[in-house]
Amino acid sequence: MAQNRIKRNIKAALEETGFGSKSFSDIDRLILEDGSFNVTKKGAGFKGFSFYYWLLNLHWIRLLLYGIIGYFIVNLLFACCYYIAGPEQLTGGLEQRTAADLFMHCFYFSTQTLTTVGYGFISPVKGTSSMIAAFEAMLGLLGFALATSVLYGRFSKAKSRILFSKNMVVSPYQGIRGLKFRIANPRKSQIIELKVRVLYSHLEFVEGISKRRYTPLDLEISFIDMFPLPWTIVHPLDENSPLKGKSQADLEREQTEFIIILKGYDDTFNQYVHQINSYRANEVLFNADFEPMFDTSYETSTTVLLDKISDTKKA
Amino acid sequence: MAQNRIKRNIKAALEETGFGSKSFSDIDRLILEDGSFNVTKKGAGFKGFSFYYWLLNLHWIRLLLYGIIGYFIVNLLFACCYYIAGPEQLTGGLEQRTAADLFMHCFYFSTQTLTTVGYGFISPVKGTSSMIAAFEAMLGLLGFALATSVLYGRFSKAKSRILFSKNMVVSPYQGIRGLKFRIANPRKSQIIELKVRVLYSHLEFVEGISKRRYTPLDLEISFIDMFPLPWTIVHPLDENSPLKGKSQADLEREQTEFIIILKGYDDTFNQYVHQINSYRANEVLFNADFEPMFDTSYETSTTVLLDKISDTKKA
Amino acid sequence: MAQNRIKRNIKAALEETGFGSKSFSDIDRLILEDGSFNVTKKGAGFKGFSFYYWLLNLHWIRLLLYGIIGYFIVNLLFACCYYIAGPEQLTGGLEQRTAADLFMHCFYFSTQTLTTVGYGFISPVKGTSSMIAAFEAMLGLLGFALATSVLYGRFSKAKSRILFSKNMVVSPYQGIRGLKFRIANPRKSQIIELKVRVLYSHLEFVEGISKRRYTPLDLEISFIDMFPLPWTIVHPLDENSPLKGKSQADLEREQTEFIIILKGYDDTFNQYVHQINSYRANEVLFNADFEPMFDTSYETSTTVLLDKISDTKKA
Amino acid sequence: MAQNRIKRNIKAALEETGFGSKSFSDIDRLILEDGSFNVTKKGAGFKGFSFYYWLLNLHWIRLLLYGIIGYFIVNLLFACCYYIAGPEQLTGGLEQRTAADLFMHCFYFSTQTLTTVGYGFISPVKGTSSMIAAFEAMLGLLGFALATSVLYGRFSKAKSRILFSKNMVVSPYQGIRGLKFRIANPRKSQIIELKVRVLYSHLEFVEGISKRRYTPLDLEISFIDMFPLPWTIVHPLDENSPLKGKSQADLEREQTEFIIILKGYDDTFNQYVHQINSYRANEVLFNADFEPMFDTSYETSTTVLLDKISDTKKA
Repeated sequence: MAQNRIKRNIKAALEETGFGSKSFSDIDRLILEDGSFNVTKKGAGFKGFSFYYWLLNLHWIRLLLYGIIGYFIVNLLFACCYYIAGPEQLTGGLEQRTAADLFMHCFYFSTQTLTTVGYGFISPVKGTSSMIAAFEAMLGLLGFALATSVLYGRFSKAKSRILFSKNMVVSPYQGIRGLKFRIANPRKSQIIELKVRVLYSHLEFVEGISKRRYTPLDLEISFIDMFPLPWTIVHPLDENSPLKGKSQADLEREQTEFIIILKGYDDTFNQYVHQINSYRANEVLFNADFEPMFDTSYETSTTVLLDKISDTKKA
Repeated sequence: MAQNRIKRNIKAALEETGFGSKSFSDIDRLILEDGSFNVTKKGAGFKGFSFYYWLLNLHWIRLLLYGIIGYFIVNLLFACCYYIAGPEQLTGGLEQRTAADLFMHCFYFSTQTLTTVGYGFISPVKGTSSMIAAFEAMLGLLGFALATSVLYGRFSKAKSRILFSKNMVVSPYQGIRGLKFRIANPRKSQIIELKVRVLYSHLEFVEGISKRRYTPLDLEISFIDMFPLPWTIVHPLDENSPLKGKSQADLEREQTEFIIILKGYDDTFNQYVHQINSYRANEVLFNADFEPMFDTSYETSTTVLLDKISDTKKA
Repeated sequence: MAQNRIKRNIKAALEETGFGSKSFSDIDRLILEDGSFNVTKKGAGFKGFSFYYWLLNLHWIRLLLYGIIGYFIVNLLFACCYYIAGPEQLTGGLEQRTAADLFMHCFYFSTQTLTTVGYGFISPVKGTSSMIAAFEAMLGLLGFALATSVLYGRFSKAKSRILFSKNMVVSPYQGIRGLKFRIANPRKSQIIELKVRVLYSHLEFVEGISKRRYTPLDLEISFIDMFPLPWTIVHPLDENSPLKGKSQADLEREQTEFIIILKGYDDTFNQYVHQINSYRANEVLFNADFEPMFDTSYETSTTVLLDKISDTKKA
Repeated sequence: MAQNRIKRNIKAALEETGFGSKSFSDIDRLILEDGSFNVTKKGAGFKGFSFYYWLLNLHWIRLLLYGIIGYFIVNLLFACCYYIAGPEQLTGGLEQRTAADLFMHCFYFSTQTLTTVGYGFISPVKGTSSMIAAFEAMLGLLGFALATSVLYGRFSKAKSRILFSKNMVVSPYQGIRGLKFRIANPRKSQIIELKVRVLYSHLEFVEGISKRRYTPLDLEISFIDMFPLPWTIVHPLDENSPLKGKSQADLEREQTEFIIILKGYDDTFNQYVHQINSYRANEVLFNADFEPMFDTSYETSTTVLLDKISDTKKA
């Protein structure tokens, strides 16, 4: 019974990543190139929907487009209100005779009210229009408060943009070999208390059924206090490594994917940031090593050449 | 004496949930359906009151309503000021003769000043009105700054909307049986470092007196790094489980409630989020198991069917 | 030598509170009633000064007052600019002849520009004034952006308002006696993961010199998951307690102060909050116990009577 | 093999600071005076670029300057639009005949629209100009929303301004000697849960090659709950210290730099803050000690003299 418990614990240790063992078994890639998961969710309806959340995650172009369309529609609606209330309640439109002219007059008045620019050439002189205008101006201010909220909400979210080397390499390390990749922070700002985890995900064939397994890999160093310089992360291929003795062909046959999970504290935004990346079997270079990425001609400060992050040489 | 200390520690371990043993003994439900506690607080007066806090927690409809009413009242007050200062200090109202007309003229002028729309058809031409208008326009801007603060404050608060299966099930698990429930994140965004605790709350009858006890339940996995897929949380009903051998009738007699506490890090809002839920005895299905909720016809990405989260079958 | 090391560690353990052993030896109280420290800092000059920080910590009344004064001064300065540029560049002032009238005209124009209300009755018609007005309107918007920042910065800061019982009591507890105090959250919102530390601060007389010592006290429970109900915090007066056998007279002679440090996570603001409080010797009631603060007439929800938090009875 | 593992672990412990052993070997200083790293990053291109991030880190003067220039350019562009659409579509410019006058008329109209001040003396009376103005006013509001976002983003970032003593001192401590420096918080607000780490960075000469090593130094106390008073941080120079027996000449020859890393929680901003500082060999005073920095004439509160933080005397 205690035996069972231990087994369960091992199983738990292997699967407490949240990826599950079946779901990702045959698909092309677990982690897409933008760091998101290769998962489609259906049938939620509006249970998880939040208007603000949706605005936060819209693409900038779409957000701007929707903003302009919304602005146009709101003005159109208010133009109708003013037109129904009677265009003669607005000054400055007396010489305009056609209905279209009068409607446009109402429309321009609406834009001048909603933005609170209020030139006054067109101005409400009677009760109904004045009341609608009072309401529209308030609505304009609220809409603008909303815009400020959305803009700040989008801006204030820290997003780390840590650079990854294009490939992993397998090269000599401390008398044995090591699986290595390299990261660097392109910004001047600091990422502090950076933690890295590497999961080795691969298909295991048990009794003819393939199951995806996730094994955390031991790292030489998995935490650094500060991240001013490029960092080469190393998994030593010693006798404890689940990768020991595997060739590139093995990795490809097992549909291997190395999942990298970074967590740090962004010192400009004062927020925790996460970044996920992955390397597939064909992105691992055996018997290669990284070129140095420091400029040796420096004099008083250390100079990092970020465009050399993926440069490798024969090991 | 050391014995006493140990006893105290056990007691502490059982009760460090913050629920207390007496207070919830006879009531209907500890956790209401919106995740809040079934607790009423009286007699605080204004000791804990905060205006902003109140605005943050108002329902949207109420907030809007109070906003409009407040806008109306402020304009009414300033209309009075302008009326007292003399409506003849404002342009554009010369042809209006009745007191009501002149008061409405002041009112419209106030709305045009507070929103800073300032058409100018009505405009202050003398000192007193000009001074009041200068003050009102500043107040309008401040009021609007407040509105922006409240809107952003409401929007920027991360709220997880994790879906729970409608029922808990008891079904075979690793050779024994397990108590299970299922959760899923309906959003595309990530919840990271998700931790789950399950408290088993029930009445204990000691010498004729019922006391409510809170026992944390061991879970197969209680923490996952990432939460891209549905997660079935399992409490193994092994020999260590306080639920071992209990039937549905036992659970109902003891007024059992399983309290679920989730904590995670929302990667869109960069904030920790909490969510509380509970299952009562009549929401536990014995000898049932969850249906799979993956779409087996997927090709390149894993497809989750969120509307099947509560689907069960005979075990 | 190892002996020395241990001694140093003990010393460290006693003093890692950050209070120091000499500085607070003779003063009246370590913690003032608003939870701040009884410390005056001099000679920093402007090294730690931050304008925003200062605005955040100003009293509301002062903030409003400074705001109005600032608004007035800025308008005065711009009025001078317009007056120097020539009041005849502004419309609507032709019939005003005295210099004072013309200056007030400039002043009102400035207020209408800074708030962007811009009625237009007064309007710039020449280059210099138009240019100044363009600059002033931009400045007005920036000033208002600043106001929004300050308002939101003040509002969005979570402040816990946990209520403390007025006194500590010493009463029977688990066969021995316990030093107790009681806290409650007056708000409906949740404080989560609440941690409490109690420091016993007193004067120690060693070779005629008094030194202040800070000893953390063991608590029955020092952490709760959730805080929906009042919580009575207990330090058991067992054989390990540094308070064992001390009377009220002892506590007063040693100028005892119990420092309470609370830390929790506010679930409305999604921020960590801290609250500090202290009890002096004369606020400890020996042989008293707290009255229950639940309304026993409840039916479906637990009812807490917050105004009874300090009610005690003979033990 | 286990031996190798241990060696690797030691290496890891020494280098998990993120500084690397080669990169900083010959340069003048690791930590610049503003607490940033003496590192230059090249070749990142726009990979890490974020417009908001850039605005957050601009100097105030530059930000203001760019803001004014941007405001001017946008108005210039819109002035061109109105000029092309035809200046006769704007009121108030009929008496102005030269092209330059008409263009300036358009420019002033643009400033009055962008800031939404809209006096109305200049006002659009035809379709094209009205439409452009409707768009410009909306753009003005968005630009202002952006300004609010940037201002708040800059303001709301907590920055600790902890003061450091100018020098480190080596003086008697607990029967042996200690390496000491002193810090103080000049603000009235609290830094909570302050953690300090000291790294001893120096060149090691192995087989003629110099390598920079980073060794964490043991501290008497490395964590304090609260930080109301100055704190003297001590590294005991006992038999375990890597500095044992080293003279000032040794420190200078090895290009020693002591790197101080502070982390705390700012209770006004409710954010974690970090601060980095360093002392070079020539900033260490042997056989000196700090002067007390308390005002002994206090009566009811402890008085700290912050300008004496660097005062030392012969030990």
